[in-house]
This record gives sequence, structure tokens and C-alpha cells, in this order.
Amino acid sequence: MFAYKCIVAYEGTRYKGWQKQGNTQNTIQEKIETVLTKLIGESIEIAASGRTDAGVHATGQVFHFHTSKNLADCATTKTASYSEFLSAINTYLPKDIRILQMESCSLRFHARLHAKQKTYQYQIDTSPYGNPFLQHYAHAISTSLDISAMQQAACYLIGTHDFKSFTSNKRMKKSSVRTLYRITILPDDAKQLLTLTFVGDGFLYNMVRILTGTLIEVGLGLRSPDTIPSILEGCDRSLAGHTAPPQGLSLLSVSYDDADTKMKASNQTD
Amino acid sequence: MFAYKCIVAYEGTRYKGWQKQGNTQNTIQEKIETVLTKLIGESIEIAASGRTDAGVHATGQVFHFHTSKNLADCATTKTASYSEFLSAINTYLPKDIRILQMESCSLRFHARLHAKQKTYQYQIDTSPYGNPFLQHYAHAISTSLDISAMQQAACYLIGTHDFKSFTSNKRMKKSSVRTLYRITILPDDAKQLLTLTFVGDGFLYNMVRILTGTLIEVGLGLRSPDTIPSILEGCDRSLAGHTAPPQGLSLLSVSYDDADTKMKASNQTD
Repeated sequence: MFAYKCIVAYEGTRYKGWQKQGNTQNTIQEKIETVLTKLIGESIEIAASGRTDAGVHATGQVFHFHTSKNLADCATTKTASYSEFLSAINTYLPKDIRILQMESCSLRFHARLHAKQKTYQYQIDTSPYGNPFLQHYAHAISTSLDISAMQQAACYLIGTHDFKSFTSNKRMKKSSVRTLYRITILPDDAKQLLTLTFVGDGFLYNMVRILTGTLIEVGLGLRSPDTIPSILEGCDRSLAGHTAPPQGLSLLSVSYDDADTKMKASNQTD
Repeated sequence: MFAYKCIVAYEGTRYKGWQKQGNTQNTIQEKIETVLTKLIGESIEIAASGRTDAGVHATGQVFHFHTSKNLADCATTKTASYSEFLSAINTYLPKDIRILQMESCSLRFHARLHAKQKTYQYQIDTSPYGNPFLQHYAHAISTSLDISAMQQAACYLIGTHDFKSFTSNKRMKKSSVRTLYRITILPDDAKQLLTLTFVGDGFLYNMVRILTGTLIEVGLGLRSPDTIPSILEGCDRSLAGHTAPPQGLSLLSVSYDDADTKMKASNQTD
């Protein structure tokens, strides 16, 4: 068996999210599995670092898959850049899904279980009438926000907390404790665009969108930054703000420890 | 009569270009005229600085129109920022067309006839598999270009020339002499994106797209930069390169002399 790790970018507007679900057509997972199955000549299932919702984008989603075929045989050179194979995949994939990188990895590597850090970005369009070029890439709120209040609120969110108030998953059985390493709030005055970047060890279902919705409410003066600690402590979804819409969200990158990713000679067998 | 000058941004992907043509539905001009006619309560015709083709975008297209109504009456303040009127227009327009500014202007002002300078941008995506987020905003060529050769070729194009070789308009009766003030070629290595900016006193039909197609052929090594002078001299469309596709093109801005635009008291009558 052979294992491969891939980085994929997608423009999520047209899709019903990442994850294949029963009869749901038009998911990103399904599009990629169909092309890989066709090219490799055996049924391929892929596993991503996490699912993304309908309309959410990614510039650096990661997935892995197993196959009985050594795909290095398709590679043009022994450097195994897989450029020929990547070209073929991308030729058959729709233009809004592009596999950017592929590498051989340990058979034990799992894109979700081994993810050490994820970076998400959320774009907020503050221009008065909505930027026509950012319709599918930003949440248009048509008003300016109090950035220093948002930054103050963000400081309360940084660190290790139970983020139960910040997830839509009601039947969460596992721990909802996560660590947020960083939230940056970057205004681009010329574009009237506010970019929030979230870096953490993992994110609960809808967590980035609920964090963003809450920060927007702070920026609009509807909530005080000082209310954040009690929202966290309450462990109750109804205490936090609204779920910001999907189109502003992008998964930028997922990082792993080399020890989990790299292939060991003993793991790779024919 | 009253005259108004507007700046409009549009994401041209969904439209059959700017110009209303016979029974052609779904043009940008038609969308704007429909909303203005509805809001003002009389038939409004608008005239732009120039038409743009299907799939071409604009961040700063300019148009003017005449009406018997004083639209300042709708304005919230006497500063006549027309913000209330603009909000209403943008509410009724599709989200990919946004009127950004409106001002009262001279009845003699004409957006096409008085245009003094136009700036166009053409984006070329050189990433190996095509950036999924630039599908509708760049021409994906999946290979790198020789930028210094392109810059050398651009130098020959700067200045006042007969650009007859660089237009698709075969039945051109008027002069095809234009002045190109500047062509800048800016690579963004991180995004693998090349942005060409063209500034001139005016552009012939398809001129920017044919200039770009020719510069791409130079960048690919298919033509030498030294062939540009003979293409210009030949005054024959078949000598120049291909017409680059529309989605990479955006009209950034159009500038005017204040003397042509500004309202004189004597021009504005009830």
C-alpha cells in the first residue's frame, strides 16, 4: 500500500461543502474522489483535515488517501514531484478545484487526526454598497467597525478555553476545549476590507464563523468586549453572537509534525 | 434639465458587455437604465466612457445621464452627496453592479467625448494549474513569461502611434492614432500573477486585449520585441498577436478635465 498527502485549493461557491453525505451531489470530496478513482483505476477514498461548509473556500486544505499503486511510476522524474500526475488530475477536475501539491507520506499519516495547527481567514467588506468583486469572498456589512473594541474582545479569546459557546454542534460528545494561538484583525482602508485571521490547534464546527459573528457585534457596539469572558464561561451557544455567513471564510493552511507525515521505509510495502 | 456623472464598478462575468444592443438582454447599461428609470420616474438613457465586452470588468467606469428632475431633492443633506439616492440605486441593482459615486455635472459634459485618459488592467495567471480564485479575473496561461522581453516590447508601444494593427474594428472610419502614456508590467511572485497596466488617451476596440495577446507572445518567446515597430507600421491586424480573453481585463479609471465636467450656473435650468 502507498499513502499520499495532498494540498488542495477550492473556490467553494458552487459546492455543497467538502463532505460527501449520502446522496448529496456536488461536494468537493466527491469531485476529487471521482477523478482519483478514474486516474488510478481503483476506488479511492480521501480524508481531509476537516470538512468545510457550503460556500466556504480553501487555499490550503489537506487530505490523504491510500492506494495499492505506486504513483511515483507516473512521475516524470525520480524527484517524485508528481507534476505529470498533478497535471492530469487538474485537467479532469473543475477549474474551481486545484490540487496544488502531492507527496508520498507515511501509511499512518491522517490529515485530520494529525493536524497540529490550522489557519482560517474571514473577510468583512465594510464598503458602503458592497464590493462587486468580493460578493463570494467577503461578508458585506456596509458599515465601518470599531476595530480597537474588536481587538480587545479578541484578546479575551486567545488561549486555551472551552469554546462550547462558539459551536453549532449541539450533540458534541468530545472535548470542546481548544487553543487559539492568535487572532489578527487587519484593516485595508483602500479596499474597505477587514481581514480576520485565526490560528489555533483546532476549531469546532462553525467556530470561526461564530467567533467572527461575535466580534462583528462587538465592532458594531452591540456587545462590550468585556462580555467575552462570561460567554466563554457560560458554555452556552445562545450567549455568543450570530454565525457569520460562509462566503467570507477560507481555510488557509493546516500544519503537521514531520514525524507524523514522513514515510518510514518500514511503512511502505508493495 | 439636470445632468449627472456617475462612477460604476461591475463584475462583468454574468453580462453580455456594457452596451445595450437591439434585443440583447442582460447588458450592464440596460440594468442601470432600468433602475434609474424606475427610481426617477422618467425614461433615462445613460452614456458611458466606452463600451466593455462580455466578461470584462470595471472598477471605475464613468457614465452620464440627463433628467428633468433635480436629484439633489432626494439627497439627505445639502452637501449633495446623493448617498440616499445611491443607496436606493444599489438596493435595486444586482450585487455585481455598484454605483460608487454620483455628482451633478455640466449639461454639456459627455462621458465618452470628454474622456482625457483611461487606465486598463490585464491580469495573467502564470501558476501551473490555474488559480481557482482568479478564473474570472485573469487569463490562465500555466507557464512563466519572459518579463524583460515584454518590457522591451512595451517600450516600442509607448507614445503616439497609429494602432490600426491592434484593433478588431475592420470598418474603422475615424483616426486610429492614439497615445499610450504608460505600460507597467508588475509580477507578483507569491501569487504567480502578472498585472499589465495600460494608460492612454483612448483605446480602440479590443486594443488592450490585442496589445496583451502580442505581449504574451513576446513573453513566450514566439515573437521578438524588435518586431513591434514593423507591426505598428504595417497597420494590419494580422501582423499583431491574438486577442487575449476578456476575463483578465478591467477598466480601472477614466479621467476628465474639470472644465468639461463642472456645472456652470448658466447650464443648469429648471
